[in-house]
Amino acid sequence: MNIEKYRIKPGKKFSLNEFKPDDRSARGNSKEEDLARLDQMGTEINRLQDILHAESRRKVLLVIQGMDTSGKDGTVRHVFSKCDPLGIRVASFKAPSADELAHDYLWRVHSQVPSAGELVIFNRSHYEDVLIVRVHQWIDEKECKRRYQQIRDFERMLVETGTTIVKCFLHISLEAQKARLEERLSDPDKAWKFNPNDLKERALWDDYMVAYEKAIEETTTEEAPWHVIPADSKTNRNLLISEILLQTLQAMDLKYPPKPAEFDNIVIE
Amino acid sequence: MNIEKYRIKPGKKFSLNEFKPDDRSARGNSKEEDLARLDQMGTEINRLQDILHAESRRKVLLVIQGMDTSGKDGTVRHVFSKCDPLGIRVASFKAPSADELAHDYLWRVHSQVPSAGELVIFNRSHYEDVLIVRVHQWIDEKECKRRYQQIRDFERMLVETGTTIVKCFLHISLEAQKARLEERLSDPDKAWKFNPNDLKERALWDDYMVAYEKAIEETTTEEAPWHVIPADSKTNRNLLISEILLQTLQAMDLKYPPKPAEFDNIVIE
Repeated sequence: MNIEKYRIKPGKKFSLNEFKPDDRSARGNSKEEDLARLDQMGTEINRLQDILHAESRRKVLLVIQGMDTSGKDGTVRHVFSKCDPLGIRVASFKAPSADELAHDYLWRVHSQVPSAGELVIFNRSHYEDVLIVRVHQWIDEKECKRRYQQIRDFERMLVETGTTIVKCFLHISLEAQKARLEERLSDPDKAWKFNPNDLKERALWDDYMVAYEKAIEETTTEEAPWHVIPADSKTNRNLLISEILLQTLQAMDLKYPPKPAEFDNIVIE
Repeated sequence: MNIEKYRIKPGKKFSLNEFKPDDRSARGNSKEEDLARLDQMGTEINRLQDILHAESRRKVLLVIQGMDTSGKDGTVRHVFSKCDPLGIRVASFKAPSADELAHDYLWRVHSQVPSAGELVIFNRSHYEDVLIVRVHQWIDEKECKRRYQQIRDFERMLVETGTTIVKCFLHISLEAQKARLEERLSDPDKAWKFNPNDLKERALWDDYMVAYEKAIEETTTEEAPWHVIPADSKTNRNLLISEILLQTLQAMDLKYPPKPAEFDNIVIE
């Protein structure tokens, strides 16, 4: 599958309007076909993650951003359903604590980046510090621009020290969010996921789209590119992210470490 | 299944000899039947973990201890194969860092205990500080006894503050370890798992069994009981731990939080 069209090129004007949230073109001819491909890709991602862990040298970071109900949790569940819990780690960034706020905004994020052999998923990330804080005008435009540069620098350092970074924006429509919020309210077992505060953020939808557009344009780089994932269809979303992650791992040319020659002489007593 | 016979009662003399590592009595009539049961229990563990997370009040801690190759990693992979990566977290304790050594031995462990709604698996744990360090006589018997008490106190505090603790010792035989080490050496894709230092610990096998026996006897309590898991058969091991964890979660009587009455009046614009 050609994932290039979902990858945002640096140094160009970027418009979210070029991407339709209800695009389903990653999907195949039938639901069965899609699920079989997801299953197959999940198995392959697990296999490659095992080699990444065995190699214990390079690191992989998947950053997932998106509005409420855009499917961040669902992505983790479905793309990594075949993965060994030992091999992956999810770092979820919620509203910062007092201690976190007393540090720079990259502090809590830096402490969670992958170590050698790890695949880490950021469920939200340092991008909240140029999104929600900008939409609510807790920082001004000048500070926001400074942060774009700081984020580019931070990510370049991670890449230069052995991390492969993949960033995905889960792009849903206002209508899809409405349907998903209503679903949470109507299902007694999902009501706990509903947070009345989400409605306040929903009311700022257009401002968020502007903030996302700007942040993506400013922080998509050759070394740490953004991808826009049409996510009204959960299957389309899962297929695309699986494909992007799989191609990323394949491009790393992962190999099990060779067996040291001296191991040939070992006899277990 | 009756798991009582694998649970070590407090206040009694405990002998590891009562447990045969090659016991397979948790297994059913066929491999197919066993795999189907594992699959079924995995699905149910995942369902209950979702409610634990939704409830976001209580915590679950599974401590896994065992000799090299006893199957700690394999247990995580197979018992939690159906689990959402968002819902569980694995904390692996390796040789302590200089910073960790500069603190008391419970310090790094305490920082990794589950928070509200979390299910955390300790892959090795604070028990290493009464096992490897005692076998190598880095601490004397008096200090070791002091630590048993400290560990009982620490775990009781965790239980009193909302944590359910399950501790499992993966009991393998010297022969099973030999076969597994040889397998690592002969398979090029597994050779990276082989650590020549494991042979030094293997040479101390009997001392380790004494240290485990003593530690289990001293730290099995009503609130945080030890289980001895015959683990020469991987399937027997996976079935038993799944069953113990499942029964533990079932006994917690987990419930999705009720939908607040005021949610009934919400209309999504």
